[in-house]
This record gives sequence, C-alpha cells and structure tokens, in this order.
Amino acid sequence: MSDTSEFNEHISFIQSQTNKGLSKIPLNPNLTQYFYDPIAYVLKGKGKRLRPVLVHLSGQAFKAHPDELMKAGIAVELLHNFSLVHDDIMDNDSKRHGLPSVHSKWDTSTAILAGDGLFIISQLSLIGLKPIVSQRFNEIALEVCEGQGIDKQFENDNSITMEQYIVMIGKKTASFLGVCAEIGSLLGIATEDESAKMFQFGFNLGLAFQIKDDLLEIYGDEKKMGKSLGSDVDENKQTVLTILAREQDSKKWSQFIQDDKSLQDYKNYFSTNKIQSKAEKLVENYVNKARKSLDSLSQEKSKFLYQYSNLIMKRNF
Amino acid sequence: MSDTSEFNEHISFIQSQTNKGLSKIPLNPNLTQYFYDPIAYVLKGKGKRLRPVLVHLSGQAFKAHPDELMKAGIAVELLHNFSLVHDDIMDNDSKRHGLPSVHSKWDTSTAILAGDGLFIISQLSLIGLKPIVSQRFNEIALEVCEGQGIDKQFENDNSITMEQYIVMIGKKTASFLGVCAEIGSLLGIATEDESAKMFQFGFNLGLAFQIKDDLLEIYGDEKKMGKSLGSDVDENKQTVLTILAREQDSKKWSQFIQDDKSLQDYKNYFSTNKIQSKAEKLVENYVNKARKSLDSLSQEKSKFLYQYSNLIMKRNF
Repeated sequence: MSDTSEFNEHISFIQSQTNKGLSKIPLNPNLTQYFYDPIAYVLKGKGKRLRPVLVHLSGQAFKAHPDELMKAGIAVELLHNFSLVHDDIMDNDSKRHGLPSVHSKWDTSTAILAGDGLFIISQLSLIGLKPIVSQRFNEIALEVCEGQGIDKQFENDNSITMEQYIVMIGKKTASFLGVCAEIGSLLGIATEDESAKMFQFGFNLGLAFQIKDDLLEIYGDEKKMGKSLGSDVDENKQTVLTILAREQDSKKWSQFIQDDKSLQDYKNYFSTNKIQSKAEKLVENYVNKARKSLDSLSQEKSKFLYQYSNLIMKRNF
Repeated sequence: MSDTSEFNEHISFIQSQTNKGLSKIPLNPNLTQYFYDPIAYVLKGKGKRLRPVLVHLSGQAFKAHPDELMKAGIAVELLHNFSLVHDDIMDNDSKRHGLPSVHSKWDTSTAILAGDGLFIISQLSLIGLKPIVSQRFNEIALEVCEGQGIDKQFENDNSITMEQYIVMIGKKTASFLGVCAEIGSLLGIATEDESAKMFQFGFNLGLAFQIKDDLLEIYGDEKKMGKSLGSDVDENKQTVLTILAREQDSKKWSQFIQDDKSLQDYKNYFSTNKIQSKAEKLVENYVNKARKSLDSLSQEKSKFLYQYSNLIMKRNF
C-alpha cells in the first residue's frame, strides 16, 4: 500500500469513528425539541472532521490512549461547530456544508441556543482528561472568540494591514489547529518542548488553512465548499486577497471595488494582478514553516502529520 | 450583633469579594474592544451575586477552602451572566439591572460573542478544582439551556400545565441554584448524601425563586428590579400566574386576555381571583421543602443557609 493510500485509509477511519462518537452523544428528546433538534441537525452535517483528525494524528505520534483521543477529538469538533453556528449568525451566512445554516433553517434564537449547547457538550466531553487539556482548550476557545471579535471589528476598515490580518486569523483559525495538535501530544508522552512544537505545527498550518480558505472563497468549487462563494468580499470583510490587492495598489483596488462586482470580476482582478499567486505562495510558506516543527520528531512519528500538512495545502473543499 | 445583621454583613462581604474577583478577570484590550468592551460592561452590572453567595455559604458549612470557593463562585456568576446576555436576545429584553441589555446597547452579534466569552471564562475559572465540580457545572449548564429551549417552546402554547411549567423552571432556574449549593459542598468535606441534600436545598429554593420572579414581574418595583415589568405576560410566556389563572377558569382568563391589558389590569385580575396569594403560597411551600434538606445538618452548618432561604422568600428585587 502506498504512503498516501495508507494515510487516506487512516484518516477515513478517524473520520468515521468521530462521526460514530458524535452520533452517540445523548440528546434528550423529552420536551426539548427546540434545543436538541438543531443540535442533531448540526452533528449530522458533512464536516471533514479535520480538527479531530489532527488531535488523533498528533496523539498517535505520542502514544496517547485512543479513548482519550476520541474524547478530545469529539470536544474539538463540537467547539468547531459551536463557533460555526454562532459565526453564521454574525456573518449572515445562510449555507453551511451544503445545507441551510441553523439560523436560516430555524431562527436566530434557536441558533444561539444550539451553539451554546454544542459548546457545553464539548466541555462535558473533556471530563476525565488531564486538567491541562481543558485549560488549553478553553484558553484557545477564548482566542477564537477574540479573533471573531477582531474580524467583526475589521469589517469595512480599509486600513487593516497584512500584519493585523495575520493576528486576526492567528487567533480565529490558527490557534485552534494549534491546540488540536498540542492536545494530542499532551494526552501522550511528550516533553513541554514537543507540545510547544506541536502547537506551532498546528498554528502555522492554521494560517495556511485560512489563507487557503480565502482563496477558495473566490476560486473554489461552490458544490465542494457547500456554501455560496464571494460573500466575505461582498460583506467587505478583510481577506488575504483584498489586503494584498490594496497593499499592491490601493488606488487601483478602490477604483475596482467602487461598484458591484461579480465573482468572475474578482477572479480576473486577483489573477491578472498576481494576487492569487502571491496568496498561494503564502500558503506554501506557512505549510513549510509548520513542517519545520516536525524536524525533531522521528520519521515514524511525523509521517502522518507531514501528510496531513499536504492535505491542508492541497485541499479544494 | 443580631443573627440577621451578622448574616447581612457576611453576604455583603461575599458580594464585595465576588465583585473584586470579577473586576480582576484579565480582559485583553489589544485589538479586541469588539469582544471585551461588552464583557466588561456586563461584569460591572449590578447583579446581586446570589449564586456565588450560595456557593460560599454551602462551602463554608462544609469547610471548603475559600480560594476554591471564590473560583467556583466567579464561575457560577459568569455562567449566570452568559445566560442572561443570550436570553435577553432571545426574549427581546432591552433592559437588565437597570441598564440597556448588551444586544440593545450594541447589537445581536456583539451580544452573542460576549455571552460566549463569559461562558468560556467561567470554564477557565474552574481549572484546578476537582473534576466533579466542572462536570456538575456543565451538566447543569446543559439543563439551563434545555430549560430555556422548553421556555421558548412553551411561548404561545396555552395548554401548558403546572406540572410542565415546574419541569421547565426546574431546569432553567432551580437546577442552577441546586448546583451552586452542591458545588460548595463538593469543595468541602461532604458525604454523597450531604451533597445530594445541598442540591435539593438549592433546587427547591430555585423553584421558589422563579415563582417569586413571576410574581415580581407583575407586582415588583420597576426601579428595584431594574427592568420593565409585565413583558413576560405580554410576550405570552407561561408564568405561574397565567397558568394558575388558566387552570382556575380558562374561559374567564381567555376572555380577559382577548385584548391588550395594562400592568394594572393584570394586577387586579390576579389579586381579585386569589391567583397572587396562591402563587405566594407556592413560594412558601418550596422554601419550606428546601429547608427540610437542612434538617440533618448541625445548627452551626445550617444557620446561614436557613437565612439565605429567607432572603429568597422575601426578596423584592
């Protein structure tokens, strides 16, 4: 079996085990449809479970117990879904994983409460693990919210620099992947230095992941992405492409966005002005930086983590 | 010093220590005003800190360590404020503790994120305490959300029975006071039976508390309550008064509410039909039931808890 097919089989297994775990979460149906129906709807969604996969791959490298990794993997997936449900309200996103988002299928109140529930269940999934796991999990959950706050703050602010953007996605996206890799190692036998390196691995991958996300928001396949594209740029959110475009030639860019543009217009602008290729280069750089954190690990430990970084770089969903 | 003034002094001390603790929570101002300003605003609010007070009184009865009680007290107060911020959005409440609620001062997105932040910080406040504390805290947080879901589900449903109403407030309000009393004991030296009794003490007090709340919603002093009164009845929420009125004479009640009524109309209806006194009797019954859970404790242990139950029964805020 080739390395790639072995890896693919391995992560498929983690994904299906995670889905099984999610489906076993007890949702008390008695009198509480308002609360639990939307939660069940979210848990059946077609996420790629990339965060639990990273917990498992990192944990396996450090010989963590599979049951503990499963608990932590479920927790990070729930945390992720909590933030999606609430962010979709805040960002007016009507689709998620190819289906109506919770607030558009039901309403805002339902979605607020469903998100809260997902978050609480994530905490319950951590019970019994080392306290440091719960601590790091919640420290990073706070950073994710800080990042979302900064993201909202940045809307319509055309003075945001690339440096500020990196701070924002560092908190909102990268620290989350960082803590997934870190938690895996914390549940195994890892030195402090190794756990710090695992955080850095996930963190840099997370920066690459978000920049790739901004690219896919313009160049992705709507079907594979399961959401309507171009909405971030339309809502005047700061993305890597708009910042690169502005930093390259702010006059030309502000003239271009003066009136409504189609997705194709954006594609053309970012391609002909080499913004797209610059952003792709950034993705590559951050993935390479992430891989440096694996240098001190044995080949056996790092093999799947290395392949995971490939997955992030090449994803088209 | 009389028993009452000793008690009042004691809970004032707990309240001021709790406020001090809340004011020390590090709120990172760098780039994150969108996220932290509303959180700071909430923490400066004029809550009575009744939940931390219960944690401390119970914990002191069981010789828990003050520092641990402070952590747990801060956590329950944060959890409480998280649920207020989100519930105010869901229930369209524009005032809280005499000030604009977060979503009406800022907007819905800001309030969602602020609530999320309060909840995450509550989890961080529990780090280092026994795992059972975090477990019970989150189990009950889930019940609180279930209760809020049931409450939303019950809106406009005029078939809700008193029994169903008790289930709803049991989850939404009573279990929370229950867990405050339970956590105090868990942090001290208590048998399983004693902790279960402390939960029952808080739980029954919580039922009394919510029924009293429904009464104050009609008969309270708007200034002391710090919110506009009558909104629950106007929004066609199920309260103990509307259910008692319906169960007493559903035809008369449905005729009465056919057209818009003033707060004074409601007051008159509930008084002349003895609904008010029935509800007050219920408060007394649940407080007495709560006090039964104190029977097996020594007088020294139960003294302040008994006085706390007086406070709940007689509160006018």
